Amino acid sequence: MESELKEMLIDLDTLKRSLPDSSLLASIDMMQSRVEHLTDLAKCAPARRSKVKDMSAEVVDSNPYSRLMALQRMGIVKNYERIREFSVAIVGIGGVGSVAAEMLTRCGIGRLLLYDYDKVELANMNRLFFRPEQVGMTKTDAAVQTLSDINPDVSYTLNITTLQGFETFTSSLKNKTFCPSKEGSGVDLVLSCVDNYEARMVVNQACNEMNQTWMESGVSEDAVSGHIQLLVPGETACFACAPPLVVASGVDERTLKREGVCAASLPTTMGYNALKDYFPTMEMKPNPQCSNTACLDRQKEYILAKPARDAAAAKAKKDEVLVPECPVHDDNEWNISVVDDSEPITADASSSDTLPEGLVRELPTADEFQKPCDPQEMIDSVDDLDELRKQLEALNAD
Amino acid sequence: MESELKEMLIDLDTLKRSLPDSSLLASIDMMQSRVEHLTDLAKCAPARRSKVKDMSAEVVDSNPYSRLMALQRMGIVKNYERIREFSVAIVGIGGVGSVAAEMLTRCGIGRLLLYDYDKVELANMNRLFFRPEQVGMTKTDAAVQTLSDINPDVSYTLNITTLQGFETFTSSLKNKTFCPSKEGSGVDLVLSCVDNYEARMVVNQACNEMNQTWMESGVSEDAVSGHIQLLVPGETACFACAPPLVVASGVDERTLKREGVCAASLPTTMGYNALKDYFPTMEMKPNPQCSNTACLDRQKEYILAKPARDAAAAKAKKDEVLVPECPVHDDNEWNISVVDDSEPITADASSSDTLPEGLVRELPTADEFQKPCDPQEMIDSVDDLDELRKQLEALNAD
Repeated sequence: MESELKEMLIDLDTLKRSLPDSSLLASIDMMQSRVEHLTDLAKCAPARRSKVKDMSAEVVDSNPYSRLMALQRMGIVKNYERIREFSVAIVGIGGVGSVAAEMLTRCGIGRLLLYDYDKVELANMNRLFFRPEQVGMTKTDAAVQTLSDINPDVSYTLNITTLQGFETFTSSLKNKTFCPSKEGSGVDLVLSCVDNYEARMVVNQACNEMNQTWMESGVSEDAVSGHIQLLVPGETACFACAPPLVVASGVDERTLKREGVCAASLPTTMGYNALKDYFPTMEMKPNPQCSNTACLDRQKEYILAKPARDAAAAKAKKDEVLVPECPVHDDNEWNISVVDDSEPITADASSSDTLPEGLVRELPTADEFQKPCDPQEMIDSVDDLDELRKQLEALNAD
Repeated sequence: MESELKEMLIDLDTLKRSLPDSSLLASIDMMQSRVEHLTDLAKCAPARRSKVKDMSAEVVDSNPYSRLMALQRMGIVKNYERIREFSVAIVGIGGVGSVAAEMLTRCGIGRLLLYDYDKVELANMNRLFFRPEQVGMTKTDAAVQTLSDINPDVSYTLNITTLQGFETFTSSLKNKTFCPSKEGSGVDLVLSCVDNYEARMVVNQACNEMNQTWMESGVSEDAVSGHIQLLVPGETACFACAPPLVVASGVDERTLKREGVCAASLPTTMGYNALKDYFPTMEMKPNPQCSNTACLDRQKEYILAKPARDAAAAKAKKDEVLVPECPVHDDNEWNISVVDDSEPITADASSSDTLPEGLVRELPTADEFQKPCDPQEMIDSVDDLDELRKQLEALNAD
């Protein structure tokens, strides 16, 4: 559109110069200014947010990171802004991968590497993320279009691939230009969000070879259950340690999908049995007879590194300086103190800071925010939760 | 833009008629056709998908409902298309409400009633759904802009409200123009997705008065846990039956939120403890001493209707026609049959339909899809899951 408007300006100029008399000049001038205005309108794309240099915790409506930086103030995250140093690779930008990508984008992740070979279709509209006007675009292009509008601070790398180019895939993961000082590969996490076992085995092979932590996900064909698995090479089972029967038997999974049949799917996050609202978890150790030789190599390394891990853990424990607790009253072995009962013990009930008995403020006061929270206290509350969990499980088991 | 292009066509026409000689006519004709083309381009907004009259199960890329209709073929839903008769009211279009609205929209819900008074800000970009270019729009306007692009088949009703107009709120829920034949109110479900107790108590009051089933949701201020509650007036506890202490004590919750402090939030779905990955569930009966008189009325009705419910349940059980199982061999009380061992029992291994031992096709064959699935079989599998759940809970309880 802009180029055509430019042509039009040239045409009007030519016309002006060829005019035999000057009586028509004014109307051509008016047309020229009209075209200039149209050019401005055409240029004016929907307002995009500008890049943010440093993440601020300031509580103003215009700060896209205020509610994420609040995680730091509340003691959930130690240094939120470090998220900008991290790279995540997402293999498969479908119902799972696209939402994972959007969540990481909104969190302000440093870099996303997106892998998919497919195009957006209207049939994908039953899952979150893609929009009908993106039909026909590659899923990676459509994703970057949406994501870079949401957060231009994130660095996006597109990869239109079927994973058949194994070398291309692994070399893209090894690329360290984003953060050259990083140990290991160029990414911190690989998320496998694919819909077939062949692709999962490719990701498994690459991550075993590169000693790369990854997560695997899947949704059942009836759309009401699914799974999520964390895989740390050598430490937990790899995808080949306890392969699904369809992989172990070597049958071509494509023969299991029939023409004219499609799996059901719903626009919800997955990883559990939705009909029973049940999400069991379990741990899987690696299989010493795993068919994947790279997995066996990582297992050996993990076992060899055990003494070093134990020593580091012991050192960390020793470094925890235990401050001995002082008695409240040094010269009073029963810790008895005298309270003057002529004065009320509780604070003045008329003070605006006073709450009814049993009610505590969830938010600390502004001054308290400055103090880092006590890690031991957090561990204690986790223990209480464990206790509560056991009690509730006992109740549910009836 | 279109109006300006129209003006331009008129200008060009005037110029043409005022030209002293015809040598310049050709260049003006060319400019006119250029403006006509620009008009076409300006009209061409991003391609929206057209409305769909009947939901089809046909497996083609252009069908936005194929993967939802597959739920019916797989026996998860009996009549998927009935979703078009249902209305859901969503109160609060923030981090929870907007995603609930998008999920229902993509599922093809009949009608959505959206309630919010707030505007979109950059500070909301840490949660899913809203985009930076929507900053300044009301949340309901921005939501309908996005949702009607995603699915124009859904009917949207906007309500910019603070819930202070209680009568306006209840009368909007009572409006039955969408489905006049419906019993009860004009909506099938109310989702409370608000961020304060005052609004929750308003929704509670309205739903108790109208005998309306609703769901309540909430996220903790540190963003790592939350809750979901289903409330059926008279049958389960209402929000006032076991009120949060802040409500019971009558303290003004706004005094608990301080200037310059904001709650943390993350772009994830909520309803559980994310740090412990734990999602306990419990049932709460209504409180016979509830302070809400409408709740007490619903409790009385529920108790009075018990004989009718019991009779209906007994009738439903009696109507289950139990077909007596026939023995496989009528004249053979031990059910013994003779198999000719010269022929293989299993199917021909060379057939493309044959799978390795232990492997079953998750998808039935095309013919089997026509048969409705056996409900008893589904109940049995649910029992097995209950058993598995107990076993896993016993393991987890260690």
